[in-house]
Amino acid sequence: MQLHPRVSAQPPVPALEWCDDHLRILDQRSVPDDLVWVECHDAAEAAAAIAHGVVRDAVTVGLVAAYGIALAARRIGHAEDWVAALEADFGRLARVRPASTHLDWVLGVLADRVRRLPDQDLDVPDLLAQAAISLQASGEESGRTVGRLGVQVIRRHDRQPQRFMTLISQRAGGSHAGALSLMRSAQRAGLVEQLYLCAGDAPDACRLALWELSQDEVPTALHDLAAAGQLMKTDGLNWVVVGAQRIAANGDLINDVGTYSLAVLAMHHGLRFMVVAPSTAFDLALESADDLDPADSLLNVDGQLLMDVTPAELINVIVTERGLVERPDESRIAELLSPRRLH
Amino acid sequence: MQLHPRVSAQPPVPALEWCDDHLRILDQRSVPDDLVWVECHDAAEAAAAIAHGVVRDAVTVGLVAAYGIALAARRIGHAEDWVAALEADFGRLARVRPASTHLDWVLGVLADRVRRLPDQDLDVPDLLAQAAISLQASGEESGRTVGRLGVQVIRRHDRQPQRFMTLISQRAGGSHAGALSLMRSAQRAGLVEQLYLCAGDAPDACRLALWELSQDEVPTALHDLAAAGQLMKTDGLNWVVVGAQRIAANGDLINDVGTYSLAVLAMHHGLRFMVVAPSTAFDLALESADDLDPADSLLNVDGQLLMDVTPAELINVIVTERGLVERPDESRIAELLSPRRLH
Repeated sequence: MQLHPRVSAQPPVPALEWCDDHLRILDQRSVPDDLVWVECHDAAEAAAAIAHGVVRDAVTVGLVAAYGIALAARRIGHAEDWVAALEADFGRLARVRPASTHLDWVLGVLADRVRRLPDQDLDVPDLLAQAAISLQASGEESGRTVGRLGVQVIRRHDRQPQRFMTLISQRAGGSHAGALSLMRSAQRAGLVEQLYLCAGDAPDACRLALWELSQDEVPTALHDLAAAGQLMKTDGLNWVVVGAQRIAANGDLINDVGTYSLAVLAMHHGLRFMVVAPSTAFDLALESADDLDPADSLLNVDGQLLMDVTPAELINVIVTERGLVERPDESRIAELLSPRRLH
Repeated sequence: MQLHPRVSAQPPVPALEWCDDHLRILDQRSVPDDLVWVECHDAAEAAAAIAHGVVRDAVTVGLVAAYGIALAARRIGHAEDWVAALEADFGRLARVRPASTHLDWVLGVLADRVRRLPDQDLDVPDLLAQAAISLQASGEESGRTVGRLGVQVIRRHDRQPQRFMTLISQRAGGSHAGALSLMRSAQRAGLVEQLYLCAGDAPDACRLALWELSQDEVPTALHDLAAAGQLMKTDGLNWVVVGAQRIAANGDLINDVGTYSLAVLAMHHGLRFMVVAPSTAFDLALESADDLDPADSLLNVDGQLLMDVTPAELINVIVTERGLVERPDESRIAELLSPRRLH
């Protein structure tokens, strides 16, 4: 892992750049004061970048892991049994953030690719690099789709610029990345009068969020989460926009702690409540949040709440790359996720 | 200001001890690991103790200032014009926490005493020491009265042990001292099944609160304020108990930020909401919180909310040393504060 300080001239700055024999990553710890790039040349360096917080949000972590596998294959060069050859690197990357379902999903996609290699002489390192590039491209495309859909739903309620609130989580891999991305799309569509970032004690996450939002000059104010109720009462807010760690089949939302309080406060003050999430956040095996074991799902080892549960009836709309679900319930969610659905 | 480390054997520990020629103060920064006492011999040392955070809550700050005036008089010994002789010391103590209405009130009581000295040969230092002692005694008596009234009102709703939540503020002079004192009384009355302390980023205030509550072995759990909604939904809570920085004539509550969100969440979940405050917190010149200038009254210099406003209709009961006000409104508050009221 080598460090290359560089000062940015022109935003927006790409977070990841694939350079064939290495990966360049924007060090999220370095923004906004200096923009430092980190280079990874193998899976160990990719794992170290995740472990040290060079990247923090779940999506970027997944991409760094995918490129990490491509780098591992490149270093190996040729193998008779690629599954065996890459086993240690898959394990190393999976262990670096064991609770991330998104990381599991990404590594699952890559592992599947390795298991199903056609029986012919292929450039496997190049094939895995293409798989990672394609994950990144489809993630970016999903982000654009979510942005377009979110802008539609905001505009359908009111064509005037709106006042938004979102929650910044102190957790590594907090789920607010999608909400911030949507706010940048809404700003480009002229729909953001003001964005309130509410956070508890999360200085690193807030610094990064403010920098990301500044790329599109989103008018942003940072507030303590304790102030959310008073701000909703006095500041003419219209929307609360949050992410999702997991969504049950009936639309119950499991997300970073504080989300449920914001949802109750939003209802009390007549604000609309929007969830922005990848469709992979839906867990159809979980009928409703009533089936959760709180100790397993919501608490950390010290018994402190890391996540909370917002009942579906407090949610106005869920925005995913596959479409919108308004007033979410079991049938509407099933319809969204149906493989037979025509867009 | 001299430091005397000492390890406590027997709680409860008195916060202040008047020793005729000096004042001993429990250093609130030192609990619970070591219990350190600070000695003050004059007004400058008393002011320094407040400035350095040896004492933080408004009531104790007021008492240290009162004893500081007594120490100043003792050091002067004899004077023809006591008003002039003490002027610099009054100014020094007032300046150490300029926004505290309670400190202003205490210094006003002492200044009035000095202005009204009878025209005869008196031991003025002793007279001012007696004034400070009497302030401390009447404060302790008020605390007992508030505890008794609070226990009555809790028991009237349910005789079983209850589950409480309170807000710990990160501000110096946060208003939660009365709520904590009431919780200790409720515990002695066998009425506390569990107390949830909710706080944002307030490690010092939380450490002190936990120590104070441990004096009566109140079963206490510390949580992030972000978790308040989820805890109310799942943990069978009965009461939210908060302090007051200021109460308008109609019962609108101005208090540390986060209070209003807790009040809305309490209403949504069917919890009762109690305010514990000295009767001096009522500001009858303020008809309602609508008359407040938020920039003057609620924000700090960076435009961040330090306080918020809870409308009277969200409050079930206000407990003061002069009595209870249930479902507070203008007439009930006026009746409580009426000088002609018979207890």
